[in-house]
Amino acid sequence: MKLWQGRLAADTDELAARLNRSLDFDSRLAPVDVAGSIAWTQALSKAGVLTEDEEQEIIQGLESVLEEIQQNTFEFLDSDEDIHTAVERGLTEKIGSLGGKLHTGRSRNDQVATDFRLWVKEALLRIDSMVLNLQKTLTQLAEVNHEVIMPGYTHLQQAQPVLLSHWFLSHLWPLQRDRMRLAFVFQETDVMPLGSAALAGTAYPIDRESLASALKFKQPSPNSMDAVSDRDFAVDFVYNAAVLGTHLSRLAEQLILFSSREFGYFELDDAYATGSSIMPQKKNPDMLEIVRSKTGQFNGHLITLLTMLKALPSVYDKDLQEDKPAVFACYDTLTLILPVMNGLLSTLKINQDNIKDALDPALMATDLADDLVKKGVPFREAYGAVAKAVRKAADLQTPLNELPLHHWQELHPAFDQNLYTVINPESAVTKRAVFGGTAPDSVKEQISLAKKCIMKVNQDQQ
Amino acid sequence: MKLWQGRLAADTDELAARLNRSLDFDSRLAPVDVAGSIAWTQALSKAGVLTEDEEQEIIQGLESVLEEIQQNTFEFLDSDEDIHTAVERGLTEKIGSLGGKLHTGRSRNDQVATDFRLWVKEALLRIDSMVLNLQKTLTQLAEVNHEVIMPGYTHLQQAQPVLLSHWFLSHLWPLQRDRMRLAFVFQETDVMPLGSAALAGTAYPIDRESLASALKFKQPSPNSMDAVSDRDFAVDFVYNAAVLGTHLSRLAEQLILFSSREFGYFELDDAYATGSSIMPQKKNPDMLEIVRSKTGQFNGHLITLLTMLKALPSVYDKDLQEDKPAVFACYDTLTLILPVMNGLLSTLKINQDNIKDALDPALMATDLADDLVKKGVPFREAYGAVAKAVRKAADLQTPLNELPLHHWQELHPAFDQNLYTVINPESAVTKRAVFGGTAPDSVKEQISLAKKCIMKVNQDQQ
Amino acid sequence: MKLWQGRLAADTDELAARLNRSLDFDSRLAPVDVAGSIAWTQALSKAGVLTEDEEQEIIQGLESVLEEIQQNTFEFLDSDEDIHTAVERGLTEKIGSLGGKLHTGRSRNDQVATDFRLWVKEALLRIDSMVLNLQKTLTQLAEVNHEVIMPGYTHLQQAQPVLLSHWFLSHLWPLQRDRMRLAFVFQETDVMPLGSAALAGTAYPIDRESLASALKFKQPSPNSMDAVSDRDFAVDFVYNAAVLGTHLSRLAEQLILFSSREFGYFELDDAYATGSSIMPQKKNPDMLEIVRSKTGQFNGHLITLLTMLKALPSVYDKDLQEDKPAVFACYDTLTLILPVMNGLLSTLKINQDNIKDALDPALMATDLADDLVKKGVPFREAYGAVAKAVRKAADLQTPLNELPLHHWQELHPAFDQNLYTVINPESAVTKRAVFGGTAPDSVKEQISLAKKCIMKVNQDQQ
Amino acid sequence: MKLWQGRLAADTDELAARLNRSLDFDSRLAPVDVAGSIAWTQALSKAGVLTEDEEQEIIQGLESVLEEIQQNTFEFLDSDEDIHTAVERGLTEKIGSLGGKLHTGRSRNDQVATDFRLWVKEALLRIDSMVLNLQKTLTQLAEVNHEVIMPGYTHLQQAQPVLLSHWFLSHLWPLQRDRMRLAFVFQETDVMPLGSAALAGTAYPIDRESLASALKFKQPSPNSMDAVSDRDFAVDFVYNAAVLGTHLSRLAEQLILFSSREFGYFELDDAYATGSSIMPQKKNPDMLEIVRSKTGQFNGHLITLLTMLKALPSVYDKDLQEDKPAVFACYDTLTLILPVMNGLLSTLKINQDNIKDALDPALMATDLADDLVKKGVPFREAYGAVAKAVRKAADLQTPLNELPLHHWQELHPAFDQNLYTVINPESAVTKRAVFGGTAPDSVKEQISLAKKCIMKVNQDQQ
Repeated sequence: MKLWQGRLAADTDELAARLNRSLDFDSRLAPVDVAGSIAWTQALSKAGVLTEDEEQEIIQGLESVLEEIQQNTFEFLDSDEDIHTAVERGLTEKIGSLGGKLHTGRSRNDQVATDFRLWVKEALLRIDSMVLNLQKTLTQLAEVNHEVIMPGYTHLQQAQPVLLSHWFLSHLWPLQRDRMRLAFVFQETDVMPLGSAALAGTAYPIDRESLASALKFKQPSPNSMDAVSDRDFAVDFVYNAAVLGTHLSRLAEQLILFSSREFGYFELDDAYATGSSIMPQKKNPDMLEIVRSKTGQFNGHLITLLTMLKALPSVYDKDLQEDKPAVFACYDTLTLILPVMNGLLSTLKINQDNIKDALDPALMATDLADDLVKKGVPFREAYGAVAKAVRKAADLQTPLNELPLHHWQELHPAFDQNLYTVINPESAVTKRAVFGGTAPDSVKEQISLAKKCIMKVNQDQQ
Repeated sequence: MKLWQGRLAADTDELAARLNRSLDFDSRLAPVDVAGSIAWTQALSKAGVLTEDEEQEIIQGLESVLEEIQQNTFEFLDSDEDIHTAVERGLTEKIGSLGGKLHTGRSRNDQVATDFRLWVKEALLRIDSMVLNLQKTLTQLAEVNHEVIMPGYTHLQQAQPVLLSHWFLSHLWPLQRDRMRLAFVFQETDVMPLGSAALAGTAYPIDRESLASALKFKQPSPNSMDAVSDRDFAVDFVYNAAVLGTHLSRLAEQLILFSSREFGYFELDDAYATGSSIMPQKKNPDMLEIVRSKTGQFNGHLITLLTMLKALPSVYDKDLQEDKPAVFACYDTLTLILPVMNGLLSTLKINQDNIKDALDPALMATDLADDLVKKGVPFREAYGAVAKAVRKAADLQTPLNELPLHHWQELHPAFDQNLYTVINPESAVTKRAVFGGTAPDSVKEQISLAKKCIMKVNQDQQ
Repeated sequence: MKLWQGRLAADTDELAARLNRSLDFDSRLAPVDVAGSIAWTQALSKAGVLTEDEEQEIIQGLESVLEEIQQNTFEFLDSDEDIHTAVERGLTEKIGSLGGKLHTGRSRNDQVATDFRLWVKEALLRIDSMVLNLQKTLTQLAEVNHEVIMPGYTHLQQAQPVLLSHWFLSHLWPLQRDRMRLAFVFQETDVMPLGSAALAGTAYPIDRESLASALKFKQPSPNSMDAVSDRDFAVDFVYNAAVLGTHLSRLAEQLILFSSREFGYFELDDAYATGSSIMPQKKNPDMLEIVRSKTGQFNGHLITLLTMLKALPSVYDKDLQEDKPAVFACYDTLTLILPVMNGLLSTLKINQDNIKDALDPALMATDLADDLVKKGVPFREAYGAVAKAVRKAADLQTPLNELPLHHWQELHPAFDQNLYTVINPESAVTKRAVFGGTAPDSVKEQISLAKKCIMKVNQDQQ
Repeated sequence: MKLWQGRLAADTDELAARLNRSLDFDSRLAPVDVAGSIAWTQALSKAGVLTEDEEQEIIQGLESVLEEIQQNTFEFLDSDEDIHTAVERGLTEKIGSLGGKLHTGRSRNDQVATDFRLWVKEALLRIDSMVLNLQKTLTQLAEVNHEVIMPGYTHLQQAQPVLLSHWFLSHLWPLQRDRMRLAFVFQETDVMPLGSAALAGTAYPIDRESLASALKFKQPSPNSMDAVSDRDFAVDFVYNAAVLGTHLSRLAEQLILFSSREFGYFELDDAYATGSSIMPQKKNPDMLEIVRSKTGQFNGHLITLLTMLKALPSVYDKDLQEDKPAVFACYDTLTLILPVMNGLLSTLKINQDNIKDALDPALMATDLADDLVKKGVPFREAYGAVAKAVRKAADLQTPLNELPLHHWQELHPAFDQNLYTVINPESAVTKRAVFGGTAPDSVKEQISLAKKCIMKVNQDQQ
């Protein structure tokens, strides 16, 4: 059944109908579609368009259609263009021509916009709680490994010693921003288009404020043309997935590196690793690689939606139908990779010995320069002296802490025996005691802050 | 001068140095870079690293470097890698080796992150006020053209009559969402990285809370590794440009269409149109086309940043340097196209006669169906009868309002003479009187709401 | 079954396994996977690794597995990671431990690269023939409507009269470039990775030249590490889809415009149009809008693959697994929209009267300037005179061909009565008689050329 | 000066003019613009539109304009919209109103399309020769380091031993595909639009075949509407940059990894490394990171162009003007990063000892399985036995080659003392002797092939 039969003389071409049909992906909207239709039925009744009996009969019909869909006993037809059509057809088969009254004063344009927003709101909350779980795991890892010192990297070169807990937390805060962003999108999505009809507003005296309440929307949309046209919330959803995915890709990359034989800091639990079909010795971080790769999928869907929206000529153009596959795919991927990352981190084996062995004495070069600064040497001059010492040590193939004092003093007279005590990772981290720094106490403070912050997001929306 | 001379034995290859150099684009950060360095100098002084005299001398030196840069008398050298290096070199040339103390406890990693955030915060406010101006113009156009009726379109086919003012406002609300998004990004950007040093936190006892206040940041960053690594605010900025640009592309597209000879609803003022080099009769909407095309640029820069960030292995990798050209380009484009769109709309000529002539009687088909509904016919049945009447009229090449009554009654007995009065655009719009609908009173209410809403965004940040 | 059981002590986490599993999308590779395995079996036999009996038994086993898969009687297990695993498991269930010899000297890395290339080669040929069909339809439309004159547009403003046939052909040549690009990718894909094993080359004395012949590849790959790593052919495939999709989006856009009430040049056949659920009069070009929208999908998949490939650290990383969903989706979309566009164009109704009525006399403005040029007036001066006449006519609201002569002569003395005969679409098109121009004879020549060119592409690959 | 003054009554708004103006980026087209205009002048003369004297005077005027531009003495005006306007204005200032004859029968639409193609053709050849240089360096590195054995990686885990030369060559072949792609785009670009005028073809009897020859184009375009509309060559150019950039990002990533302290295989020459502003010990691979990051820029420009082209409604829309910044930016980046990568590779220090020390005995696990296969054990069974031995060794924290024989024999009776000789990298690589494999002789053969192939591309276009 097409809802619009009558206007056109001929049947739709078979391939054209297949191209046009959205049922394959929008059937997952069934529960929200029926919820929207029930609220609409009640609104029509309040507006005097339906009698109370009609209202009851339609609602029961809708509920029984939904039940069939959820129990997989509903028979979808090839001619059902979309979930809205299928539900209306199912309803009419159940309650007869009264079913034809449901679509009074409503268009699929405002119906699908409403359904989709209902779905996205739920999806946002579900993702938020999964990100929260990941944050909790990171907090726990930070607590458990509080005083382990590791080399901190910039440019993939050892830079300065940092606490491993500081590193774990450095991946928690990006997730916090992700959750703030999700909460923002929730607010944006929380606007009800229903009652906008095709584009001009419904011609029936519907109380849109109370309809919004019934569907748990914060408010009705202020402009009917914008309401059926707006897909900002969908693009925002996918954009958030892209940024969240990017954060996860950085975490995954670092886990892959640190689990390589050459770094050797971590070992993945066997439940989160795979082997090779030909090389019996291999233990591979496939899941982390797929997480890294999914960034491409998120970025791709973002481009899909932005390209789709460019320069649309009307209030509603069918182009908009392509919004859902992108959003659904991002949701499905996120709700898979987030728990996998969580499980993988929870079971991660940390090789403290390897981490300790990896610390290069040259990591304390900045501290050596700072030490001269304390004696009144301008930083830039102190820097230069230490830099030359590092080069000297490299030329002599000597670890920095074994370079004899006379070499140091040739480079700057202010160096003395004390420099060898400066070359010490523990004191190096302890000195970085500012708010946000890597000193054990600073990180302890940070853990407390993190615990508080992660519980505060999104509280009023749950 | 390189800040890191001493460690490496050889000079940088000339092309490699050119590739590495960011001065060509980051020199516009000079004012915020100096502001950041002054605040840092004060913080070092408070921390006892500098004497008050040193503090004063450095600050005066920095101010005079900035003055020279702003008056174009500062001589940049090929060897200046970036604006930070150039400023530090300029300072040292002015005040001697004392200049070498400025960089104590600070890294370019936290310096550039701070500079960039300061710059982005200003940029967000400037864009916000330009979008507000555009909203004001749309409100004015809605007020002035309050009761003009135009065909509303879906699928680029005439759908239902709407008020022209309703159409203008349908482009105001997307801009409102853009401004909410900008305000959100402002908050996110309002976090100070300074004091994070290279990655581990500064080793000097800097009071980061008061440093943040001095630079008008809401708070210092909670994790030094995240602080130098985070570019979310930059991607968010570019994403917002992409969505705003997409909204403008839809407006531009519709203005192009409506200014074509075939629609004829609008005429661009000559100040916002161009001609052809070969066809003397042409009056072309070039600026609107460029606005439409800029969507591509925004989307492109978004992909640039998201690709750049994927899977970075360290806390700070030089890849991040590519963040600024994208943000600057989006800013430059937005601050050009927003006022142009504003000027173009302010001077738009509206051809009310053409708009009126364009209204097809078939636009009232939904009203005809609704009319049967009032008589108790289920909507789907009423729809079918009207659809067939439309087809009949098309076959007979007759306007719908001239199709004789007997044809109607053959299709459904409930039709009567009254249908000819239903085919009336004025009554069609008046019926859509719900909140958000196209009825004159509803639109008047919407105008008031819009005026209130657009003044409320961002109030506390200005 | 995992092919790599034994190395790891624990089972894979359930969600991790689901994330890792590619069977949902790679099962369509079954026929090429089995073809590749049969060829590999023969190669192993030639190399003395299998006896002839073993070879026969394995091949029969593989054929019967494929048959079951194709008849949907093959039972896939949750533990089958991918199609390769499923086939090897199925084989071993049929022929016992001999099945375990199939994977000798081969890795899934070279296996999947081979499978995928076999699949892509077939896909390219199928798409090519669909594009060819569309070109044939455009040629036919050009022939049938050879002398119909329409307004040619630039900037969506009427520019100069052109032949409708010229317009149809202007959409044929981009498709010709698409087919050249497809043919190029075919050549690039026509290289066999098999025998590369995991990365280093197989340790068995396989004759890769003859193996390539057996699988109808032009040549074996020259570097085993590159062979398992290279996905250029997949990105090229998706890129070609994106450019082809872009061409179709431009055609779709113009068909949408020209089918609007305001242009009225074309009417879609009812088999390629849809209606509205609420507005009984609507006839909507939904399929064209979806074609336009699919550009977003193609561009998105392109970004997916390019992002995926960025900066991969090894020869083979699991990231590469994401290559197939993108390619398959592009193929599925193209093989749907190409025949739909073909059907839609074949049945398009052309309203010659509307097209004729739309021609604005001002379209001949260039010809008026050219006419002065013939009298020795420099083009730029002639242009200026005509431009002013057009403005005069606009101010007087007079069609250009009704502007009295004295106005013209005030603007330039070289104008005379003859100018009114210049304002004639037929003579305007006839004058553009260069190769590639819109004159009827030029277009006739173009049609012949097009017919020849479209048959020449890809001849040797079919 | 605007070329189209006269038609419009008012001056262009200042910001609108700035938005519309392309001179800032298209002035680099000056040489090809003048070359195109000279050829056009000659064609007009042949067609009888200009006398020979006029022809000479115009050509001399154009040449002197170009000379001024190239010597930076040409004064561009704010009112020059684009390079075409500036050149025509300059010409007219030199030779008076005769300059106004140059634009006869030509439009900026076909002029800019011609200019741009001329420019792109040169750019393609220049890039090709830079890629060739990089290939030569890789070949040399492969020759010099022919027999060095390194761990080959998949999933960033050591997989099998390979020759370092094989690894270098694995980065040569992707570049070979890039050059094939560039050669393909050259052919596609080698089509002349000139003579298409605005869209309908020039109305003057120009011999386009001989005009094409004069400008060294292979052929004139077959359809004037397509000719001014087609930007496929520009998108193809940027796409090629994106794929080439992706290949370079993979090479850069691996060089970054292998230059880290943890891998230690390579050391960058000081001329291709940088330091830190705060950490004196750092030696950073900034240039490689920027190369990796530029992938984002290329992908971004690709999306810019694809988005720009989506659904353009006319033959020529001003949107197309955005084509050039993207192409120019990609060219400028490529011509910087290609020589930098070449220099960096040419000067790379290879630490053979570190590479040798890194080889894990477990790299020979496949060989151990293959050894059982020789004794008749099915590969899958042999694989399982070795996998368990690897796990045993890991549990006992013993290198695989030190695991006592009895453990092996518990896992499979076919193991014997010989297994310890199989654990040998030299014999492991030597066994992979197929075409494309890593055996020293195979790689020697590959080097010869590579040398031949890289000289063959593009020969006829130079």
